[in-house]
Amino acid sequence: MTTPDRGPTGIVMMNLGGPRTLDDVNPFLRALFADREIIQLPLQNWLGPFIADRRTKKIQQHYGEIGGGSPILDWTECQGRGMVERLDRLSPATAPHRFYVAFRYIEPTSETALQAMAADGVTRAVAFTQYPQFSCSTTGSSLNELWRAARRVNLHERFTWSVIDRWPTHPGFVDAMTETVRQGLAKFDDDAQDDVVIVFSAHSLPLDVIDRGDAYPAEIGATVHEVMQRLDYRHEYLISYQSDVGPVRWLGPSTEKVLKELGAKKRQRVLVVGVAFTSDHIETLHELDIEYGEVAHAAGIAHFHRAPALNDLPAFQDALADLVATHLAAGEACTANYGLRCPGCVNPQCRNVLKPVASFRRTAVTPSPKNKLYPTR
Amino acid sequence: MTTPDRGPTGIVMMNLGGPRTLDDVNPFLRALFADREIIQLPLQNWLGPFIADRRTKKIQQHYGEIGGGSPILDWTECQGRGMVERLDRLSPATAPHRFYVAFRYIEPTSETALQAMAADGVTRAVAFTQYPQFSCSTTGSSLNELWRAARRVNLHERFTWSVIDRWPTHPGFVDAMTETVRQGLAKFDDDAQDDVVIVFSAHSLPLDVIDRGDAYPAEIGATVHEVMQRLDYRHEYLISYQSDVGPVRWLGPSTEKVLKELGAKKRQRVLVVGVAFTSDHIETLHELDIEYGEVAHAAGIAHFHRAPALNDLPAFQDALADLVATHLAAGEACTANYGLRCPGCVNPQCRNVLKPVASFRRTAVTPSPKNKLYPTR
Repeated sequence: MTTPDRGPTGIVMMNLGGPRTLDDVNPFLRALFADREIIQLPLQNWLGPFIADRRTKKIQQHYGEIGGGSPILDWTECQGRGMVERLDRLSPATAPHRFYVAFRYIEPTSETALQAMAADGVTRAVAFTQYPQFSCSTTGSSLNELWRAARRVNLHERFTWSVIDRWPTHPGFVDAMTETVRQGLAKFDDDAQDDVVIVFSAHSLPLDVIDRGDAYPAEIGATVHEVMQRLDYRHEYLISYQSDVGPVRWLGPSTEKVLKELGAKKRQRVLVVGVAFTSDHIETLHELDIEYGEVAHAAGIAHFHRAPALNDLPAFQDALADLVATHLAAGEACTANYGLRCPGCVNPQCRNVLKPVASFRRTAVTPSPKNKLYPTR
Repeated sequence: MTTPDRGPTGIVMMNLGGPRTLDDVNPFLRALFADREIIQLPLQNWLGPFIADRRTKKIQQHYGEIGGGSPILDWTECQGRGMVERLDRLSPATAPHRFYVAFRYIEPTSETALQAMAADGVTRAVAFTQYPQFSCSTTGSSLNELWRAARRVNLHERFTWSVIDRWPTHPGFVDAMTETVRQGLAKFDDDAQDDVVIVFSAHSLPLDVIDRGDAYPAEIGATVHEVMQRLDYRHEYLISYQSDVGPVRWLGPSTEKVLKELGAKKRQRVLVVGVAFTSDHIETLHELDIEYGEVAHAAGIAHFHRAPALNDLPAFQDALADLVATHLAAGEACTANYGLRCPGCVNPQCRNVLKPVASFRRTAVTPSPKNKLYPTR
């Protein structure tokens, strides 16, 4: 079914990534602390590496405790294989489909993905965020980096692009997420089901990002309610935010504090669900399972379990394929909301689509001296 | 169909309320600033009236500009009439149904409602919040006051209660809200529809309430996504929060700031939607229409409209009736989540149901010296 002059359809699966080995930890952290779209430090070129180096040993220890590295690449490749296999059946007109992993702070990077696509003869490309809920700190930063990388490797004219920028309420995704919650609930005794509090935990954001108008917390709320609707709202549940660090105020309530407080209120059974991640990585395997597991135990929560991540769940691969097939059939450049900059945004790069397959509206940026803080290459 | 020994089914429609005349403004503000469940001031018995008195003139002026008083009682009675009329048809087994308005800070108060119910021979009662999304600051405070009022008027043994404590994703409510958004969109030219940014605005909350674990922002997000799904996500939209006052930090982004920023980004068309209110009152008629209308105009937003409130929309009365009928048929005391106290809650009164129609789980309160801050009568 391939049309020779356009090559395969390339699906770029974008995510944060994680160090595969302990030696990868330091370069990963250095890349993270160099990302001015997420972290703006005074003297960043000097202070970023300094903080990264100082944290390396502790983070290496965490990765050591979960087997020596992040499984995120393996899971993403597994999901990608399942997705393109299904896509070739679902959407023969755009077959064959190939997937390319693009991590933000570690190999395979955007540059690697773009070069592989060029080598494969791809001309039609879909930038597919693997973060279900949109935030400028995750999907936004990854997309901006993709377009910069395309210029760096001189491939900015090569591909016609569209973007799948968010999918918090996609029915297939919600079905798959609900399946993991049911698997998590099954870890508790049948006669104790009514006693389980479901804690949906998502990565937190600094409040300055929220005040700028980031869509993330509302999209987290939307996903959770879709899941709870499928469970007939039969369980008690709440949403909390994990992984806040540093001196600024972050969006709450904090997952760690919530677990302590539930324990103080004599709740014995908690199921924690990572609602903003599509596979296991350090925030599930270490932070939720080990660190918060200890917090829960110390607080008196006798039964603390985590719902499995989506990982190799076939229903999730169905969802990924359906998302891409529907997107390709619609012929859109992106969602209507992608072009709507956060009201407080001053980053001129945000909300771009390089060589878009269809026109889209992109809100202008507010002129401000802060604009020059953002990277241009 | 009436069973003489149980009388009519009483539906208590609970809301904040608003002053009907300019003379009501001062007592309304005094009651608001005396509510320790929402506002905790040092020397509250003295400082509360002081602040209320100081603000009275300005708030009277606002009410003067919208016709001399709040229409919230008229709208609530209109909605109540439509609801019970439909309920008598939908649920003959529990007919007749009567509605009773219970406002938090103004007549008709909970005491008035309870005494009217007793006079009518009601024995089965439903406390039905008119806030679609749950917050301890709104529904929570109203329910706690209802149970206290029942004790004050010695009617705490009279009624068997159940509670409709939230309905952010009820399909009928979302349908009605979507209808108002469509009516709002129709105020813009047909060929300018793609240019409209929908700003869903909800009353803000202090961040301390959010950090305690209040469900409100997630439920706002859930409602908005249900509405946007029905509009096929075809429009740009965002959520913002209005009405923050005082020195503490509130949940953002602020509606006022968002409007200024959208104007600075050259957006010409904004539709604002009050997503957490079920009828017009001071926050829609004055804050959104007049104050923010001026802000929008000054910021260069040439076309600024508000979606009509639900007010007398028949689809909303259908929704209210369906909510109650479904609730009565289920025989539940409340949602599973009502009994789950906010993790940071120290108020022993929270999450109660007086003489519940069915058993429900109520999470224990954390012992704390702060517990005694809350009113007991």
